[in-house]
Amino acid sequence: MSTREGSRPGGRSARVQRSVHDAVRELLALRGREELTVPMIAAQAGVTSSTIYRRWGDLHQLLSDVAVERLRPDALPDDTGTLRTDLMTWAEQYLEETASPPGQDYLRDVLAARREQGNSFRCSEFNRQQINHILARAEARGEPVPPVDTVLDRVVAPTVYRILFSAEPPPPDWVRGLVAELLAE
Amino acid sequence: MSTREGSRPGGRSARVQRSVHDAVRELLALRGREELTVPMIAAQAGVTSSTIYRRWGDLHQLLSDVAVERLRPDALPDDTGTLRTDLMTWAEQYLEETASPPGQDYLRDVLAARREQGNSFRCSEFNRQQINHILARAEARGEPVPPVDTVLDRVVAPTVYRILFSAEPPPPDWVRGLVAELLAE
Repeated sequence: MSTREGSRPGGRSARVQRSVHDAVRELLALRGREELTVPMIAAQAGVTSSTIYRRWGDLHQLLSDVAVERLRPDALPDDTGTLRTDLMTWAEQYLEETASPPGQDYLRDVLAARREQGNSFRCSEFNRQQINHILARAEARGEPVPPVDTVLDRVVAPTVYRILFSAEPPPPDWVRGLVAELLAE
Repeated sequence: MSTREGSRPGGRSARVQRSVHDAVRELLALRGREELTVPMIAAQAGVTSSTIYRRWGDLHQLLSDVAVERLRPDALPDDTGTLRTDLMTWAEQYLEETASPPGQDYLRDVLAARREQGNSFRCSEFNRQQINHILARAEARGEPVPPVDTVLDRVVAPTVYRILFSAEPPPPDWVRGLVAELLAE
């Protein structure tokens, strides 16, 4: 998402973004995403359609930006005392949130945007940061830890793959099994 | 993709599907997918727009169906003599094809369709069938083999996750490493 040159943080540009994001969330609570249009969002946000087109290009890019904000973690991972339980707790929450109907919609919205927008990469970085936090905490306790990329490949990737491509999302104990296998090696 | 009740295989219904799919492929070879519209595809295919809307619902569903056909494997995996080299060869080809610009577009098109359409599940089944074929061949040779779901979780899932969510797709030797680690256990 690009911000116009010279716009001040907290200025008009930030206000427009906030009111347009809010409008999308309000409308999504009321109706199916297939029904959303740019003029409808503009009316709800109190801006013109051309403001939205100028800033986001099209509806896909706007929905993708909103989805990134919904997928951004709002808290650090729980500290449950061990690497094993920290990772299991985080992975189970991640599965639960991402496999929920809104979670799946957000994931698809993120992926529908142009790759150059960097939104899918941004979401993957959220996961990396949360896992890095868990790993740093475990290291501080003196536990041996796997590399963060290994956790992404062995726990996050199969979770996302099954959510996107399986007939049914996997159950919570399946994701605990992934963590157990990874740490047993 | 639903076929109208009573339509005969090879009859009008199949001809319409073939000409519309061909029209999408021809147009995609000439212009960006963002430029494609239903009337443009209808004109190229020699059908009416309403035929397309009746059969596919909207452009997303049509592009998703075309993408599934492009992702359908057209040959059995190479027989290179061992499970290890068969899996490495298949995984490397899968990465190369899926990480290519058209491959990434097809993957995104498949995911943009409604989940109920079952297209993402269909693509995952293509991978399962190819891997099952490799595993059956290895078993016939007397080699020990991992379960197909383990190969999907440990090789296919991280490959797809990195293609969709990383800044850059991974290099071929990375995917060979995934196979080597899986079989080393």
